[in-house]
Amino acid sequence: MSTWTACVNRELHRTPPRHLSYGDPRGLRELREAVSSYLRSARGVNCTPDQVLIVAGSQHALSLCLEVLVDPGGEVWVEDPGYFGTQGAVRASGAQLVPVPVTTEGIDVEYARSRAPNARVAFVTPARQLPLGMTMSLNRRLALLSWAADAESWIVEDDYDSEFRYTSRPLGALQGLDREQCVLFTGTFSKVLFPAIRLGYLVVPESVADAFIAARHFNGFSCPYLEQAALARFMNEGHFERHVRRMRSLYGARRDMLLTSVGRYLRGRAQPGVADGGLGVVLWLQHGDSEDAIAATSHRFGVELLPLGRMTVAHATAPGFFLGFGGLPETEIARGVRVLAKALEEYDRKRRAAV
Amino acid sequence: MSTWTACVNRELHRTPPRHLSYGDPRGLRELREAVSSYLRSARGVNCTPDQVLIVAGSQHALSLCLEVLVDPGGEVWVEDPGYFGTQGAVRASGAQLVPVPVTTEGIDVEYARSRAPNARVAFVTPARQLPLGMTMSLNRRLALLSWAADAESWIVEDDYDSEFRYTSRPLGALQGLDREQCVLFTGTFSKVLFPAIRLGYLVVPESVADAFIAARHFNGFSCPYLEQAALARFMNEGHFERHVRRMRSLYGARRDMLLTSVGRYLRGRAQPGVADGGLGVVLWLQHGDSEDAIAATSHRFGVELLPLGRMTVAHATAPGFFLGFGGLPETEIARGVRVLAKALEEYDRKRRAAV
Repeated sequence: MSTWTACVNRELHRTPPRHLSYGDPRGLRELREAVSSYLRSARGVNCTPDQVLIVAGSQHALSLCLEVLVDPGGEVWVEDPGYFGTQGAVRASGAQLVPVPVTTEGIDVEYARSRAPNARVAFVTPARQLPLGMTMSLNRRLALLSWAADAESWIVEDDYDSEFRYTSRPLGALQGLDREQCVLFTGTFSKVLFPAIRLGYLVVPESVADAFIAARHFNGFSCPYLEQAALARFMNEGHFERHVRRMRSLYGARRDMLLTSVGRYLRGRAQPGVADGGLGVVLWLQHGDSEDAIAATSHRFGVELLPLGRMTVAHATAPGFFLGFGGLPETEIARGVRVLAKALEEYDRKRRAAV
Repeated sequence: MSTWTACVNRELHRTPPRHLSYGDPRGLRELREAVSSYLRSARGVNCTPDQVLIVAGSQHALSLCLEVLVDPGGEVWVEDPGYFGTQGAVRASGAQLVPVPVTTEGIDVEYARSRAPNARVAFVTPARQLPLGMTMSLNRRLALLSWAADAESWIVEDDYDSEFRYTSRPLGALQGLDREQCVLFTGTFSKVLFPAIRLGYLVVPESVADAFIAARHFNGFSCPYLEQAALARFMNEGHFERHVRRMRSLYGARRDMLLTSVGRYLRGRAQPGVADGGLGVVLWLQHGDSEDAIAATSHRFGVELLPLGRMTVAHATAPGFFLGFGGLPETEIARGVRVLAKALEEYDRKRRAAV
């Protein structure tokens, strides 16, 4: 925060008068350059600064994509289970939600093609499926690209937290495999920095860049100058890269604590899902367990749980919870898992009594 | 700018950790309080802080209103001539534009009722019609409110620059007359402060507040913390009111210079329209003058003009230009009018030669 504050302070005292005006609807040039060079090297994204739009976070990017790419009533593939922010944005836009199940390789493209071959957009999380955590396989990526090319449709790659990978180098972006210019790529600074900065990015194919600029002009969303200038400086001076490295090690330790605690207190009762990256992991329960009853018990004990059912539209998974560990110190994580173990004991006791 | 910078600086160094997170989708509480008390006293707006949404400027507010209040294909009244940002936002939203002529009393409600009685929204500029400058009469305000009550429709009052009134106290907001909770009221800090701050406000009736909050949640655009906190401080410490007073006198002098110069250099050839407020005034040409030919000549002489035709959808006005004077020092204003006088001479000479 002190480095960030210093960057803001520097820009605050040297704002050129021309930057007090409306500015480029795509966002500040310096920041678009910094983002495009970061995405090229860190994520293998193919883009120039002119394809980068600075947005107010990834939810804003998803909503812009819907506005520009989908007419009312148009079909949109979403992962099921998936992020409720995506599902909600699709519904709010007047488009038609097509929930698509997820296999160990990622979104089930074959299912989706049989169900809604002419969908206009597919929203996907290839780096780490939200919430299940698996990486989309290469075969699945190629199948998805091939569908988009055939249907002349779009893929929106939501790269929401790929900065944090603990056990292996992250797979490059799906966008980097795109030969047909049909992939849009979005990410946010909300998680890697902090949400109140309200900054993220959307990389669009050249063919639709003008349509996005026009949409932003008329919907009036652009980001203030100061945070953009400060972030460009923060990135250009190398602070961003150092921050990501430091946070990766901090979050990695939290993830390890979560896995260790689950192994210690929940062994045989619940087990973690894929946990090689990100800021949250699924905890799988046993067949027949009631997510809601366990969450209610745990809530009484002071621990809030997010049932997978809340992230599901039509394709129920086995019962489980999505556990976020990014915002909790290690001692709190261990305590939370112990509380959850007690809640599960109470739940099991009551269920035995009822039988 | 130095006072503003000091306010930002103060907030920058005392941001509480809770304000680093996502924040209230309506905007920062402190700023909503400051805005609501300012609007109550300065504009006679009836509202609580809970009805105020902090937005990224008035274009953003207009677009939000369209998203929440109008289904695709729904009819929307806009003033003709009027602001192209409003016309563009209506078209971009998929709603149907109903251009309504403007009389000396403001938007022609009778015409609009005969043409599209069931429109969902009327976008109006009661304080000072953009671009013609007249204030909407009380009768017209009551007629508009009565239509909205009958049709169960909405009025969006765009109060884009009413801070600057030179010859009389501004009439209160139309919103203040609203007994049926059908008026939404919007304004921006882009003009009274500077555009790169990306802040404005939208006051909504209580009955639709939740719908607006939901829409903002899913379209993901909320404003960063820092500018909001700094602006709340700037307003609460009285700087805002002082700034408005100072700018009113500065812009008033620019307006006087424009009117004096027009009187001196264009007498008998062109005459100014209503000029008791705002940052721009219409310059009326003579019957048969070609706005575009005069603008082209003037462009060659180095002065850019905005023809009224560019702000017109279906109801042509007499020929004229909208002259913005807010951003120009007085000497530049005088020089611009002299250049325009030369351009008109050349235009007249050529036209005589062609006859």
